[in-house]
Amino acid sequence: MPTTRLEAFSDGVVAILITIMVLELKTPEGHDWPALHSLARVFSAYVLSFVYLGIYWNNHHHMLHVCTRVTGTVLWANLHLLFWLSLVPFATAWMGEEHLAPLPTALYGGVLMMAGIAYFILKTTLITAQGPGSPLEAALGSDFKGKISVVIYLIAVALSFVDTRIAAALYVGVALMWLVPDRRIERELGNPK
Amino acid sequence: MPTTRLEAFSDGVVAILITIMVLELKTPEGHDWPALHSLARVFSAYVLSFVYLGIYWNNHHHMLHVCTRVTGTVLWANLHLLFWLSLVPFATAWMGEEHLAPLPTALYGGVLMMAGIAYFILKTTLITAQGPGSPLEAALGSDFKGKISVVIYLIAVALSFVDTRIAAALYVGVALMWLVPDRRIERELGNPK
Amino acid sequence: MPTTRLEAFSDGVVAILITIMVLELKTPEGHDWPALHSLARVFSAYVLSFVYLGIYWNNHHHMLHVCTRVTGTVLWANLHLLFWLSLVPFATAWMGEEHLAPLPTALYGGVLMMAGIAYFILKTTLITAQGPGSPLEAALGSDFKGKISVVIYLIAVALSFVDTRIAAALYVGVALMWLVPDRRIERELGNPK
Amino acid sequence: MPTTRLEAFSDGVVAILITIMVLELKTPEGHDWPALHSLARVFSAYVLSFVYLGIYWNNHHHMLHVCTRVTGTVLWANLHLLFWLSLVPFATAWMGEEHLAPLPTALYGGVLMMAGIAYFILKTTLITAQGPGSPLEAALGSDFKGKISVVIYLIAVALSFVDTRIAAALYVGVALMWLVPDRRIERELGNPK
Repeated sequence: MPTTRLEAFSDGVVAILITIMVLELKTPEGHDWPALHSLARVFSAYVLSFVYLGIYWNNHHHMLHVCTRVTGTVLWANLHLLFWLSLVPFATAWMGEEHLAPLPTALYGGVLMMAGIAYFILKTTLITAQGPGSPLEAALGSDFKGKISVVIYLIAVALSFVDTRIAAALYVGVALMWLVPDRRIERELGNPK
Repeated sequence: MPTTRLEAFSDGVVAILITIMVLELKTPEGHDWPALHSLARVFSAYVLSFVYLGIYWNNHHHMLHVCTRVTGTVLWANLHLLFWLSLVPFATAWMGEEHLAPLPTALYGGVLMMAGIAYFILKTTLITAQGPGSPLEAALGSDFKGKISVVIYLIAVALSFVDTRIAAALYVGVALMWLVPDRRIERELGNPK
Repeated sequence: MPTTRLEAFSDGVVAILITIMVLELKTPEGHDWPALHSLARVFSAYVLSFVYLGIYWNNHHHMLHVCTRVTGTVLWANLHLLFWLSLVPFATAWMGEEHLAPLPTALYGGVLMMAGIAYFILKTTLITAQGPGSPLEAALGSDFKGKISVVIYLIAVALSFVDTRIAAALYVGVALMWLVPDRRIERELGNPK
Repeated sequence: MPTTRLEAFSDGVVAILITIMVLELKTPEGHDWPALHSLARVFSAYVLSFVYLGIYWNNHHHMLHVCTRVTGTVLWANLHLLFWLSLVPFATAWMGEEHLAPLPTALYGGVLMMAGIAYFILKTTLITAQGPGSPLEAALGSDFKGKISVVIYLIAVALSFVDTRIAAALYVGVALMWLVPDRRIERELGNPK
């Protein structure tokens, strides 16, 4: 089967998740600066999750661009990834509303970790579906960034019960690692075959 | 008419339904384990319905992949299916919030049953639209799984008023039947011509 | 410009409107038959509006199928139609919640009437965009059904302040006129050139 | 990479934002004219934001129509634009609910200004991605309207703290500038190379 409907469906789900998170930005009760300031925490969590969903969509886009066919297994691996991404708005809202409390902060990292693992599974099933020697396999390399991200999420989950600010810093750090120095890191670290 | 817009529209509706269900996962009041645990029931219902909508999307994808043209009747049969699927989030939320009470549990099964029947109607109109001897007709066979699912839903609706745990087990069972042993069952039971 | 993005965008908006209406089906407080019955009115309004949006999507699909190009004017005429359709969920909820009170019932008809007029404008701009002698112009004929619908909506709005049941019956009647005997009416009334 | 998925994803996000704004139109408590009238302010803000999102979608559509390829940088510039557009429903609701209070009115202008700047950045990255001498570069000209809009937004933000009605008039004015006399202004002002 071609990849078009898989792409369209994933685009739809991620587009809705990104916009559903905005619904958590409820209008404050007043109309002065303190009212606006009270949203700062929820807004920061929204920006972080927007960037994370953007990273996933971006990588998903790149990965499927070099694929030519999907199988039933790939469809389910993709739905599995979308399932964990669909929990991002909930985890974002809980973490934002509860002032970075330990459990919500750990849960946020747990959802990110599961999404990272689901992405890894999707990648593996896609490579199998393309057959041996596909351009996808060559393009992805050893996927150092994907693996290290999952490890950092795991550490952040554990550290959430020590100091949630460290966990939050790790979440921001992983996002920046994917976002900012994409090409240099990819060359130096991302593909160290 | 080609199938592209029918696919795109169905993808859109299912993508939104899947994500709208997450909105039912309201952030709990506290930030400790009991607060998280209070979501367990609603979360379980969400996972089950996510899998069901995933199964429908997956089967819809497979079915339309071997179709080349749609008619006005097919468009309405598809909207009819989407109508029943659109009630899944409501039925899921009611069943989850009301602790598997008899009527909500029966209603959930009723919605699944109607969606199953609507899928059967859609399949029939699609076969008619393709004309005789189409690959779709050959690919679908006698559709044993589709028919037995509707029968099981009906039994589960009746048993909801005896013991809702049996009904819930049947809903999980049907989902697993579609999900797990797809190929073997398809060969041994699904196409017993 | 080709018609693909216009179709995709319209599909997206209608798909979301259809599913957003389900959010109005709030889970009732109890879990017995009276609790379910209390939803009957809102549910009926939902079914009617689902059918109306389905009719619009269906006709939109047919109309654009015979178009090959769109202009900037067509894009805005299409957005104008989507604007009035976007008010259908609000009008549906208000009419359903307020027990068919006169003003909400009249507003529902007013929104349908404006959507009908917007569809007429879109059709006109599309015919202009295709140039003279296009298949679209030939396919649409005199559009008797479109014109009579707008007239009936206008009558229903006026009768809402006399007896809302007559208005509701007219809304159902117009939907049935589009839905049920599509081919016969089209031949006998719809294209009386 | 081709532009299809970027277009589909943007269509999805804008379609959802447009329809999410309707959710702010909560059904009033009564069913008489005063109840309907109480929605006037929120409804006016909705119409204005609908037009703004329509303008962005329309321009986005035109701009990508003459593009043939996108890069990773373009994907992120597009997500950046979608981020600011995603804040339009929140800003609309706050301004509408708080009776055009100074801070919400200024915030609305700030979001529009950031969206304008993000659109400018997207345009620049798209021109770079197409390579020198592309039809996109020729088509866009000096983009006088885009630049003057950002300046007017900035003035409106400042004037929000003097008289919010002037700011509101400026928001309406910019929308009309883009909406109404598209061709003439484009010829006389928009491309004064």
